[in-house]
Formats: sequence, C-alpha cells, structure tokens
Amino acid sequence: MRIAMIGLGRMGANIVRRLMRDGHECVVYDVNPDAVAALTAEGALGAESMADMAAQLTGPRVVWMMVPAGITGQVADEAAAVLESGDILIDGGNSNYRDDVRRAAALREKGIEYVDIGTSGGVFGLERGYCLMVGGTDRAYETIEPILKTIAPGVGEIERTPGRTGELAPEEQGYLHTGPAGSGHFVKMVHNGIEYGIMAAIAEGLNLLKNADAGVREAEHSAEVAPLEEPEFYQFPIDTAAVSELWRRGSVISSWLLDLTAAALQENPTLDGLAGRVSDSGEGRWTVKAAVDVGVPVPVLAASLFERFASRDEDQFANQVLSAMRLQFGGHQELPAGDKLEAGGRKSDSA
Amino acid sequence: MRIAMIGLGRMGANIVRRLMRDGHECVVYDVNPDAVAALTAEGALGAESMADMAAQLTGPRVVWMMVPAGITGQVADEAAAVLESGDILIDGGNSNYRDDVRRAAALREKGIEYVDIGTSGGVFGLERGYCLMVGGTDRAYETIEPILKTIAPGVGEIERTPGRTGELAPEEQGYLHTGPAGSGHFVKMVHNGIEYGIMAAIAEGLNLLKNADAGVREAEHSAEVAPLEEPEFYQFPIDTAAVSELWRRGSVISSWLLDLTAAALQENPTLDGLAGRVSDSGEGRWTVKAAVDVGVPVPVLAASLFERFASRDEDQFANQVLSAMRLQFGGHQELPAGDKLEAGGRKSDSA
Amino acid sequence: MRIAMIGLGRMGANIVRRLMRDGHECVVYDVNPDAVAALTAEGALGAESMADMAAQLTGPRVVWMMVPAGITGQVADEAAAVLESGDILIDGGNSNYRDDVRRAAALREKGIEYVDIGTSGGVFGLERGYCLMVGGTDRAYETIEPILKTIAPGVGEIERTPGRTGELAPEEQGYLHTGPAGSGHFVKMVHNGIEYGIMAAIAEGLNLLKNADAGVREAEHSAEVAPLEEPEFYQFPIDTAAVSELWRRGSVISSWLLDLTAAALQENPTLDGLAGRVSDSGEGRWTVKAAVDVGVPVPVLAASLFERFASRDEDQFANQVLSAMRLQFGGHQELPAGDKLEAGGRKSDSA
Amino acid sequence: MRIAMIGLGRMGANIVRRLMRDGHECVVYDVNPDAVAALTAEGALGAESMADMAAQLTGPRVVWMMVPAGITGQVADEAAAVLESGDILIDGGNSNYRDDVRRAAALREKGIEYVDIGTSGGVFGLERGYCLMVGGTDRAYETIEPILKTIAPGVGEIERTPGRTGELAPEEQGYLHTGPAGSGHFVKMVHNGIEYGIMAAIAEGLNLLKNADAGVREAEHSAEVAPLEEPEFYQFPIDTAAVSELWRRGSVISSWLLDLTAAALQENPTLDGLAGRVSDSGEGRWTVKAAVDVGVPVPVLAASLFERFASRDEDQFANQVLSAMRLQFGGHQELPAGDKLEAGGRKSDSA
Repeated sequence: MRIAMIGLGRMGANIVRRLMRDGHECVVYDVNPDAVAALTAEGALGAESMADMAAQLTGPRVVWMMVPAGITGQVADEAAAVLESGDILIDGGNSNYRDDVRRAAALREKGIEYVDIGTSGGVFGLERGYCLMVGGTDRAYETIEPILKTIAPGVGEIERTPGRTGELAPEEQGYLHTGPAGSGHFVKMVHNGIEYGIMAAIAEGLNLLKNADAGVREAEHSAEVAPLEEPEFYQFPIDTAAVSELWRRGSVISSWLLDLTAAALQENPTLDGLAGRVSDSGEGRWTVKAAVDVGVPVPVLAASLFERFASRDEDQFANQVLSAMRLQFGGHQELPAGDKLEAGGRKSDSA
Repeated sequence: MRIAMIGLGRMGANIVRRLMRDGHECVVYDVNPDAVAALTAEGALGAESMADMAAQLTGPRVVWMMVPAGITGQVADEAAAVLESGDILIDGGNSNYRDDVRRAAALREKGIEYVDIGTSGGVFGLERGYCLMVGGTDRAYETIEPILKTIAPGVGEIERTPGRTGELAPEEQGYLHTGPAGSGHFVKMVHNGIEYGIMAAIAEGLNLLKNADAGVREAEHSAEVAPLEEPEFYQFPIDTAAVSELWRRGSVISSWLLDLTAAALQENPTLDGLAGRVSDSGEGRWTVKAAVDVGVPVPVLAASLFERFASRDEDQFANQVLSAMRLQFGGHQELPAGDKLEAGGRKSDSA
Repeated sequence: MRIAMIGLGRMGANIVRRLMRDGHECVVYDVNPDAVAALTAEGALGAESMADMAAQLTGPRVVWMMVPAGITGQVADEAAAVLESGDILIDGGNSNYRDDVRRAAALREKGIEYVDIGTSGGVFGLERGYCLMVGGTDRAYETIEPILKTIAPGVGEIERTPGRTGELAPEEQGYLHTGPAGSGHFVKMVHNGIEYGIMAAIAEGLNLLKNADAGVREAEHSAEVAPLEEPEFYQFPIDTAAVSELWRRGSVISSWLLDLTAAALQENPTLDGLAGRVSDSGEGRWTVKAAVDVGVPVPVLAASLFERFASRDEDQFANQVLSAMRLQFGGHQELPAGDKLEAGGRKSDSA
Repeated sequence: MRIAMIGLGRMGANIVRRLMRDGHECVVYDVNPDAVAALTAEGALGAESMADMAAQLTGPRVVWMMVPAGITGQVADEAAAVLESGDILIDGGNSNYRDDVRRAAALREKGIEYVDIGTSGGVFGLERGYCLMVGGTDRAYETIEPILKTIAPGVGEIERTPGRTGELAPEEQGYLHTGPAGSGHFVKMVHNGIEYGIMAAIAEGLNLLKNADAGVREAEHSAEVAPLEEPEFYQFPIDTAAVSELWRRGSVISSWLLDLTAAALQENPTLDGLAGRVSDSGEGRWTVKAAVDVGVPVPVLAASLFERFASRDEDQFANQVLSAMRLQFGGHQELPAGDKLEAGGRKSDSA
C-alpha cells in the first residue's frame, strides 16, 4: 500500500526503507530537502510540502509522523490541515500517551483517525524489525495492518510459546493493537520503564562483581580507613566481560540487554572514557508517575530512574544536607572530595 | 571421562543423563537406592556407598555433589573421607560461596581440590544445557573441562558478540573459570540477584498495565472513596498476555524471563489460583548482604528482594505501626480489612 | 481583626476557636447549619449564606476556606462570587499546589488575592497551634499576618537555633511566607512526603525489632522450612513499646512521630486489631511526581509511598506474575496462602 | 558507686564527667597518659595500667570500655585478664551485636558478666544525657542501674506518654534493659538504621524544595536540552533554611534531626564547602543485613544506606554500564562530564 512518512531521521528513514523493500510505496517529507532527496534516490516519492505529500495520496490517506516528541503537536496540526475526514494520522515517535489522548479527541472532531504507535528496536530495527504497539480504532488498525506486518520483525526464529497453536496472532509477528488511541504509547512507556529496571539490575550486579576483589584492594589501604569486615570473602578479581558473555548461554537472565552489555564490555572491558552520567528519556518518568496515579507500587522501576538522576549529581544538595547533619550531631567531618572511600570505609559514628 | 555424581534429584539426574549422552561414564550414588536404580537402568554405574563410589573411580577422582545446600557440608565431609590427595570434589548445588571458601581451605589441607560450580538452567537444562560458573584452581578446572563442555549449552544458535573472533572462548560455550574456590557460587549468587531484579521489573510493569483501566473501574465506585485524578488517562483494558508475547519480538526487553512470562500468561491469563506469596532462595539475600559489605549500592536488587518479603506479609507489623501513628495524629481510621481501596483511594489527611 | 471561615469541620472549627481566644472576630459559615450554630454558641458570628458572610466583613475582606480538597474549586468559585477586588481568599485545606497556581491566576483577573496555606498539626493543633506555610503576594501576606501569628504555635519552649539572634523571625513563631501562590501547598506537600519517609523509617525499624526473636521462633518450626542462618544471633524478644518510649529521651531520633508511636504502643503493645492497610493522601503522591518532574532522586520518599500501596495489596498482580515465572523456570510451587513462611523461609531454587 | 572507665576519648571522658557530677567515683584509664591526667585534674582516680585500675575497685568490679569498635576485642581480653568471677565488663562503644554475643559467651565461662550498652547522644550527651540500651543479665543490669540513671537524660521536660502512670519506668528516664547480652547493641543498631532513614527523608525533601525553581532556571537554558514539562509549576525559590526552622514548630515532622538541619542551614544556607560525600558507620549496614537475615522488608532503610554509597561514587561502574548499554542500543552519546543536565534533561531515546 501507499503511505507517507513525515520526518526522515534515522528511525523514519529506516522504516521507509523497510517498507519499500517489502513493496510498499512511500511518499516522504522532511523540512530538510536533503533527507528527502536521499530517500528519493532509493526509490521513495519525494514531497516538497505537506500539501504536496497529501496530493500524492488517495483516501483514506495514511500519514506516519516520526519526529522529535517536542514538535509532534505542531507537526500534527500542520498534517491535519492537509488531511480530510477518514484519513489516518500516525504518531510513531516517543510522545507522552496523554498527548495522544488529547490529540485523538481533537482530530476526531475533524473525522481524522489518530493512531499512536510505540516503536521499539533502536538502531537494529532496520534489519531486525521494530516491535510495534498500536493504539487507535479498529477501523484504523485494520487499514494499516499491512504496513505494520512489514515493519514488525515477524515470527523470526523465536520459539513459539507453549500453548499457542494455529494461525499466528499479530503479537507473535511483533505488532499488536493494544486498544484505543493512547494505549500504544502507554504500553511503550511501560516497556521502557521495564527496560530501565532490567538495565539497572544488570548494571548493579556487574558493579558488585567488579568489587568482588574489595578484600584484595583493602590490603593496599592506609590505616586511616576502617577495614572491610571479613576481607577473606572478597578476594575475587572477576572478569565482567567474560561473565556477561557467559550468561548469554543457558542462564535464566539471558536477554537482549545482556547481549548488548557483553558487546560493550568486549569492546571496552574497563568502560574507560564513559563518565557514567546516564540520561533518561520521558518514558521512565511517565511510568513512575502513572504508577503513582493508579496506586501501583513500582519500587524497582522508580529506583532505576532515581539511580540515573543521581548519576548526574541531582542528589547533590541532599547529600550536602546529610553531611551537614552529621557535622552537627557528631562533629563528623566528611571525606575530602578527592579521597575515595573504599569498601570498608566507615568512620566511627557516635550518634 | 569418568565422574561420580552424588545426589540424584532432578538436577543431578539430568546432568548425569547429559553426560552419558555425550559418552562420559557416570558412577551414581544417592541415599535413595531407587534413584540409583533408575539411572543404572539408563546406563550409569550404580554405587551402594560412598566407598563403593570411590572404588569405581581412578585418580585423580572427580566427584560432583548435587545435594540440597543444607546438607552439603555433611555430604562433603563424607565424600572427603573416601577421597585422596589429588582428587577433586565438586559442589554443583546452591551453596553460599562463603561455605565454599571455608570448605576449600579445609580440604586443601588434605590435598583435595574443591571446586564450586554455580549452575543455571532450571528444568530446561537437560535439553538446553546448563550455564556453568566454576571456582577452583587452574589444575582442577583443566581436569574437569571435558565434562564442563558437555554439560554447558555450547555455542548454540546465539549470535556471536561483535569483536569476538577466532577460536570460541569457554564463556561462548556456556562455562567459565571465574577464579579461585568460591568465585563460582559468588558469580551465580550475583546472577540470581540480577534475576530477581529483572523479574521484578517485568512484574511491576505488567501490574501497571493491568491497572491501566483504573479510570474505567473508578466509575463503578461508591462516592465514599476519593476519585482518581484524571481518570480519562486510565481507560485502557490491556491484554497482558498479548503484550508480553509481543515484546518477545524486536523489543529491547526481549529475554528468556519474558518468554516464561508470556508462557505463563498464555496458560493462565488472569493468574487465578496463584496467591502471590513469592518465596526466595538464599542467593538474592546473599547478594544484598555482599553489596552492603563492599559498599556497592544495589537499590534495585534490594527492592526486588523486599517485594518478595512483603508479598508474604513480612511487612505486617510495620504497616500496623503506620496505621497506629495515623490514628494518633489525625484520628484516621484505617480501611477495614475486606475493603479493597481502589486506585484513587485517598482519604483526607489533615496532618 | 475580623475574618470569615468557610467549612467548620474539626480543623476549621478549631482554628476559629484559636482565633477567638486571641481576640479575633470570626464570621463562620458551613453548609451544615448545626456546625454554624455550635460555633455561634461559642461567640462566633454566624452566616446563613456566602452573601451573608461577605456582608459581615469590610474590605479588604479575608475569607478562609477549610473544606475537603475535592470541593475546594467549587467553594472557591462560590466565595469569589461574593468577593470584590482587593479581597483575600485563603485555601487552608489540602489542595494540590497546581490547583492553587491555576486558581490564583484566575482570581487575579478579578483582582481577588488568592492565598494558599499549608497547615500541619493534626488533632493537636487547637492546643499546640498549627504550623503554617503561606503562599501569596506580599500584600496579602502582610494583611493576614495578625491571624497567622495567632494560629501558629508561637515560639513555645523550643530552644532557639544557634546563630539566630535579635527579633524572632516568623518561621521561629511557626508561620512563613514561602513565596507566590502555590508555594504554601508545595512546601506542605514536601512536608508530608518527608512525613511518609520518617514514618516508614520508624515502622521498618520496629518491625525488625519485633522479629529479633526469629531464631527463637525458628525452633518451633517444622523441618520442612529451611532454617534461618545463624539463629543464635536472633534470640531477642524486644519490647517495642519500651524501646520507642526510651528513644524519646536523648536519642538522635527523638521526634514527634516517635512520641506518637510510643503512645500507640503503650495503648496497644501488639497493635492487635489494626489490619495494617495504610491509606495515603495526595501529598505523598504529588511529592514523588514533582520530584520526577524536576529530576530529583527521592528513593526513600518513593519507597515509603510504595510500601503503603503494597500494604493494601496493590502489588497483588505483580506478585502473581513472579510466582508464575518461578513455576515456569523451576517448577517451584508457591506457598499455600495460609502458610506463613518464617524468617528462614527459603526453598531450593535451582535457577 | 565506683566504676572504672577505659578509653577517655570525647564520649568516655564526658560520661566520666557526668558520673562525677552526680557523685560517683571514677577510676580512669587510657593508653594516653595525658587523657588520664586531664580527668584526674577534674577529680577522677587515675590508673596507670589495667591491673592498677582493677586494684582500685572492689568486687563486683564494674568496668566500662569506651573504645573504637576495631579494638574492643583486644581491650576486652586485656580487661578480662585483670577481672574475676562476678565482675562486670561493659562495652559502651559501637560494636556489632554479634561480637557481643560471642564475647559474652566467652566471658561467661570465666564467670565475668558482659554488658553491652548502645549509647546515643552525640556531642550533646554531656549536657543532655545519653540514651542507653542495655543488654546483659538481670543481675548485671541491677548492679549497674545507679550509673545508668546518672548517665541517662532522665525524664526531663518531655511530656509523659498518655496512659503511663505511677512510678517512672526506666525507659521514661532514658535507659532500658533490652534483654540478654547483644540486645543493647542490636537495639542501638536499629536505632541508627532508623536515623539514616529519617535523615534521608529530610534531605530528599529539602533537595526537592531546593529545585522547586527548576522552571525559572529552565528559561536560561540552551535550546539543546529538552524542556521541563510544565515549567509554570516549578517557579518557587524556596528558602530551605527558613522552612526547616518553620517545621520545628507545630509540624508533624518536628524532630531533633530537623533541629540540627535548621541549625546547619542557619549557619551555611547554601551548604557551600560541603562536598556531599556521606560516610556511613557500621550500624546502618548491619541493620540491612539483619533485616535480610530475618526476612523483614526495609526498603526505606536500605535506600537511605545506598544513597550514601552512591554519594561516594560507589555507583560509578554501574552507571558506566548503563551508559555503555545506551550507546549500544540507541547510539546515545552520554553527556560530557562537565555538562550538568538540567531538570528536563532528556534526550530522545528511540529504544
């Protein structure tokens, strides 16, 4: 089928390529004409404006936006201006599902169908396919199913889940109609919340392995720092690159994120050069806020988010308050900034 | 090569089967003669006693114990009594690595090599192979490497990590010499700590999805309970079975634990009949304690452990204390036990 | 000075009483005429309607609303309808500070000054006074300062903070102009977030004390449950009522919440009859959401909130997912619902 | 009565002073003769050796050790060597209660009574008195009760807990016989665990207040960083020194730790000069480990401990692993070390 793509960054361009490979026709538009030209050279139909784009489609038109979340609202307004009742506007970016709910209601008044698609796959999506979570009406979903099937990974070599028989369900092919508008990004949001938790679990565990030799390093210390209790149990210099590779095979925690970890440590076993200031996108935050709204406990997901905040020193004033209190009640001087406290690192605390 | 197995429960018996399939000879012993007989019928060499077992091996003897952690010490003593200097005693169970460190030191005095092997794979190990983390001396490791290669999953169909070239490293075949005695179970312990974290991340996320319809259920409520803020954003009845199946393909969080989740929800989409009282084995606990010892922050791993404790109502007295305080400062009556508070469920709190 | 109070529940009525004791004149209004009559009998000026109330005041009128958060918006609209430019409308309830920001902007257009006052003190406020956090313009704050001074606790017997000299600052008397409209409830919100954290810290600690005899109870167990490691270190039957009383004197954690805990345990040492289903009001939730918005890590405040959710079994589906996974990978049967797992409670976990 | 004190550091010397003020006789010993001389000048009986100290006491001798936890074992051995059956040896330091349990058992064989006293009070103890948690036999406790009464704060001006009548219980005077040997330090350990939680709750809350102006600072930012959602709700420049002072009066969270916070912020409102590298003593760690042992969930106490670890960059390798994973799956470059990410600070995250 024919579809238009607005926004030809890495994700948008790769989705277009994946669609064209499978025989779909793509009208492509971007504010940057070079991006349009690049895909035209690969066989896409270039558009010089939104109006031009709309003109190259026939009803019901299907337009996919793949633009930064910050400008989605504006682009959606511009796109809606060239669309008609019955057309379908897709947001495949990283929008907050609340914006989808609002936008869908606004566009519904014009008769335009709004579909939000949560898209997972990262830089590997072009080859692996993208996992798609689709919110919208049944009618819109059914109209776009052919392109969903193409963009998704398909059944692949993954073993079928026991108990599933007969024809393959969409979710077995990597796409799913999750419910009304907003639900696609809601499910993607929770997906990313889980992703933060899994990443943190792996990272914390590897950090512990990295410090399994604390009892060895302890011996090198000055007498000033209190000794690690039972250093005899922390004498293991563990090769974290080898261990993460090992766990990829046969272990309960084998996972794609572990594959990536193994690759990263293979490339750079000490991770030198990485400052460890971890960014976060909106989804992890929205997940925690949604959980708080509905009263669902998410201690692990929240902890993984807060670790990222702390990695960027957003805990600084809190830590200063703690040091200030300790100074008040016990006359404890904090460690000078340059002096790394080692494992055992306790000072007498008379409070 | 020839090896003896002590303890013919599910894990022990399956490892014996996997070894025999690959041409190794297994002497088998268990306090339960029926277990011995069952494997003898499959081609193993039965032993009537530890002494009998030892007599059927030639030096350096290799003896693998696969017994419950609680009796490993006693079984190790009995086995050591029939072994000689140069022999190798393996603990493949779920021991605390601290016990390994102590036992290895004690057996070293007798010249017996102690090897601890952390084994992951669950009920699928017979077919998939077991991921093996091996602590011990170089000499012991080299001696038993042929059986490790057999028990491990091998390279399988898993894609090679970018940057790895040439001959396959042991970790690419599913086994690894992690360091001196104790390190095998240490690495396995951290593995399980990570497993708890990943499981919790998935479980919390699915719980949030399950409650994405809180705004719908809200409407059915009595006026007594405070309303959910912005119920319009929680109108999604999500099919968690379909979503967990979906995420198996192309998503960043695809993992074996997610495969199992999808299987469980396929089998029983509502999970009716499961009380949700989650047990924990020692490894999750030891992981947190080790992290505390060496001063490594593990908020996610700890939170996942504490969730399990709370699932078994070990938080009961703490919660009663909270209710009691609220009663004191605000005259707040707590909810009666049978009255499930819904999402919005807030009472005015004048403190 | 003269002031009107709308809403004569416990908090509103007690504030009126505290004001009248100090010589202020109070016009009182409530939808319930009995509540009006009760205070009229104590010397207040009763109003039969909002219009009647407004008529008994002279400009700039000062009207204090003390009504449930859910109806504040509606009451504010009704009150604003009888007020004029230059008048001051105070919300002393538990509103979300975001509503204050919006309401203040709306009323500003009519020339009405909106002031939000976060009020802490619980049932003890009548005697102790209420701690007041006041958001609004300088002009509004200065106008109402006489009544703030009366409602607040005053300097009391609390020792002056070292370094503070000269005239007493308002904060030393228990009230503070925290900034523009919204800031009063913002500060109160964070106050309650901290309150949750402190309460949880005390409750968790007492729960641990309560279980310091786990090694004694262990002995009574069936052989089925795995033993507590090192039961010899958990042989203490601690009297939590006595300990919480003790800590009130000279200890670093002495606090008003500890006073209340001691009182509660003195009254009911076992806390029998409390189900431990802990409610939460909005402030704890808003605190976590605000922290997520601005990227400030609040692991302790969030954990204390999630504990409350879990106390009401909002973790149920997550726990069922965990049990379901364990069943899949290890064939682990979960504990039957009635069978309390004791301290050591671990089953072998072969994963 | 007459008592000996070993270890004349700040705590030991101040306890001696408090005892002498109340008419007790103190024999004092320290490896540093100057410390002995200083107290002799104030009226204490100096001892030149442990033997000399023992000679100046009559049976049952009472000897209090106030020495760093690291050397308590050795000092206890030396003291025991000069004591006889029926004598009482007190450890008033910060020992791990497990050491008490072991030491008490060892000394019991010699007939020496071992008493462990957890002592809270910090630098203020000389004037305020010390809160005492006492583990040991009934006989030993009764023998030393006169000195406990002196050292403890006494009933003071603290209001009596409702329901308590008649003669004052020891816990109302600031000391308590908590149970057998070890229980004193166990209760003190939990006390400090709670202390960490309360401190963290206050610190996190103040950090949020400090960032309540994120929406104002946002405006100054480069276009590169994603904007804070809804900056209009984060426009409050809060005076944290004034707020912490305010909360001391009438608020639910008034507490001694808040008093100290107010004092610290009065002295240094910005906390400039404090690096925020927060040390931890053993008690917070032991509390978490004990909770893990007995299966009691302590998410708040654990989170407060882990925040301290993270403040000292012990999370560094974990954060590097997270950055490395992000680089793998999405090509996300982390922020350069010097570039502080502001509140909104999200980059697009296409996973």
